[in-house]
Amino acid sequence: MVSTLLTHIGELVTNDPAREGVLGQVADGALVIEGSRVAWVGPAAEAPDADERVDLGGRTVLPGFVDSHSHLVFAGDRSAEFEARMAGESYAAGGIRTTVAATRAATDEQLTSQVGRLVAEMRRQGTTTVEIKSGYGLSVRDEARSLAVARQFTEETTFLGAHVVPTGTTPEEYVDLVTGPMLEAAAPYARWVDAFCERGAFDVDQARAVLVAGAAVGLRGRLHANQLGPGPGVRLAAELGLAAVDHCTYLEDADVDALRDSGTIATLLPGVEFSTRQPYPDARRLLDAGVRVALASDCNPGSCFTSSLPFCIALAVREMGMTPAEAVWAATAGGAAALDRDDVGALVVGRRADLMVLDAPSHVHLAYRPGVPLVSGVWVGGRPT
Amino acid sequence: MVSTLLTHIGELVTNDPAREGVLGQVADGALVIEGSRVAWVGPAAEAPDADERVDLGGRTVLPGFVDSHSHLVFAGDRSAEFEARMAGESYAAGGIRTTVAATRAATDEQLTSQVGRLVAEMRRQGTTTVEIKSGYGLSVRDEARSLAVARQFTEETTFLGAHVVPTGTTPEEYVDLVTGPMLEAAAPYARWVDAFCERGAFDVDQARAVLVAGAAVGLRGRLHANQLGPGPGVRLAAELGLAAVDHCTYLEDADVDALRDSGTIATLLPGVEFSTRQPYPDARRLLDAGVRVALASDCNPGSCFTSSLPFCIALAVREMGMTPAEAVWAATAGGAAALDRDDVGALVVGRRADLMVLDAPSHVHLAYRPGVPLVSGVWVGGRPT
Repeated sequence: MVSTLLTHIGELVTNDPAREGVLGQVADGALVIEGSRVAWVGPAAEAPDADERVDLGGRTVLPGFVDSHSHLVFAGDRSAEFEARMAGESYAAGGIRTTVAATRAATDEQLTSQVGRLVAEMRRQGTTTVEIKSGYGLSVRDEARSLAVARQFTEETTFLGAHVVPTGTTPEEYVDLVTGPMLEAAAPYARWVDAFCERGAFDVDQARAVLVAGAAVGLRGRLHANQLGPGPGVRLAAELGLAAVDHCTYLEDADVDALRDSGTIATLLPGVEFSTRQPYPDARRLLDAGVRVALASDCNPGSCFTSSLPFCIALAVREMGMTPAEAVWAATAGGAAALDRDDVGALVVGRRADLMVLDAPSHVHLAYRPGVPLVSGVWVGGRPT
Repeated sequence: MVSTLLTHIGELVTNDPAREGVLGQVADGALVIEGSRVAWVGPAAEAPDADERVDLGGRTVLPGFVDSHSHLVFAGDRSAEFEARMAGESYAAGGIRTTVAATRAATDEQLTSQVGRLVAEMRRQGTTTVEIKSGYGLSVRDEARSLAVARQFTEETTFLGAHVVPTGTTPEEYVDLVTGPMLEAAAPYARWVDAFCERGAFDVDQARAVLVAGAAVGLRGRLHANQLGPGPGVRLAAELGLAAVDHCTYLEDADVDALRDSGTIATLLPGVEFSTRQPYPDARRLLDAGVRVALASDCNPGSCFTSSLPFCIALAVREMGMTPAEAVWAATAGGAAALDRDDVGALVVGRRADLMVLDAPSHVHLAYRPGVPLVSGVWVGGRPT
């Protein structure tokens, strides 16, 4: 097995809880990769020999971003809807239903090409693990094939048949479909099951039914909740011990307590608030209460078409009261925890050597230099990409 | 002279006022370059023959960004100050004076390397013309060498000796220096003269003295004004008929009227408000009053270390009431107007073939996809870079 020494790392972010600080940084660090894994981490002056040697010239190395929430399987363009929303105008076209129609009409090849393009775009920005949801098919055939497409790019696939009730059916009929034949068709391609628990989408009983049915066929649960207003979704997620509940923009004290007590990760998606001009979630309140927070992109054509976790980090610092270190942790180790993964999100011996090189002297520059593409290298499974 | 046809351009933004709309777009367009200039623009179906042919696969082509306000000549790192500011903490270290000390201590080679790195970073993000100011030297020697360094990268160099009063001198003494020996040493390397007209920096009489002295040796004027509060700077700029006045965050009705009547460009720098958590300028008010607006980065180590005009466009749409088309115009043709340039900022026959290729179906995606590096190609003077 070939070993590679990455050295002359100005700041090495490990996320190792055995080291000091939120990010467990090593100054003037080095890292040895053997095969696909991290084999050694420490100060460059103490680094062991290796077969190959890469000098990083004082740059920063971080664990690859773990983007735990995206909706990449879709077709069509909704930039005109975005433009109308930003102008404060109502928009007659059908919102999410436009995407559902375009996705159903697209070929498998078109969907695969689109997902591949977006995954590559994410990769260039430092994302090495991405969760991808279905949810623009909303039929047995189209949910299953959306997940089959997603599965070509990631193990972290999520069945989100319960995204919205499609036209031509009642909520009750649709939940029966989602928990019955659609789940059966989707399950072979999915690791997770998810629902959009919000006024106007699925109520708490419907969301519970979807999560319970998913669990019965071996799918772990996650949930969209409390995005547009307060509601019972976050407490449902905590009660069921889900790995993560996503959005968390409108929280009551009981929600925060439930998250702290359950250990469920609160996944915040500030790109959505940016692109819909809504108030941002209060990350500081969650962190101060002892809740673990993840940051993810929510990349989707309707409410947020960013694929950039550096952008989300800059927003989290500007708008949500997070420190740069907390935001970087949330987009790496936090994302890994939200996906219940213990092999990514940290640069610790034995973990996957998924990492990014930042053309900057520290992780702080991700927030200090908003919008600037600072990622100059990405390694996945021990190899440069 | 070799001619090159760029064709299969999904959306071609020309900024040609003879065409329809803010951006004068051509759908399914093409463009012919001869030497360094644009030789033909129109629908692909009508394009003439050329020696070479580049198929852009439906991508968007825009004029290169013209970033009319930056402070790239500096040394040192102020990320810790940024971090403290975001945490709501005061920061004991010296702010701009830290940068002045580091810049004075740096060698010419270090400064040149730093500016080159940032200009290249801007180029990758679509910026093909950049203005660069001095202002971290604040001594005769250091202002002159800052401009000599900047001049290696751009014709648009600006003498900003009147950035802040350095320690160890009075404002009166310093203005005498700036308008005397410092101006004499700086003028050979500068096209523009600028001053920071703001409470705590230079008052309106001092700013006027600097601009008048600069004009006497052939430097055209521009001004920083009304960034931190209302004041007389914007009206001074209008009275003197300057090409541009920059920041314009706090404006009274008389300021807006003066800008409209003088034709002076209002250059807005929303990266500053993002990175200092201040209120954004009201672009909509200016546009509705008939004032021409430019967007620029203000890239500098203290108040805003972004070099990304796509990021500024996204902020302008989210926070400042601009449409995506208005924001794109402001970052291209608006920047050119702010630098009094009629050879860049538009893709019209006879202008420089400075352009970017966007991996997106329209210019709207610059705002719709915040933080995502969409620029996939940049041509300067008719050649790919």
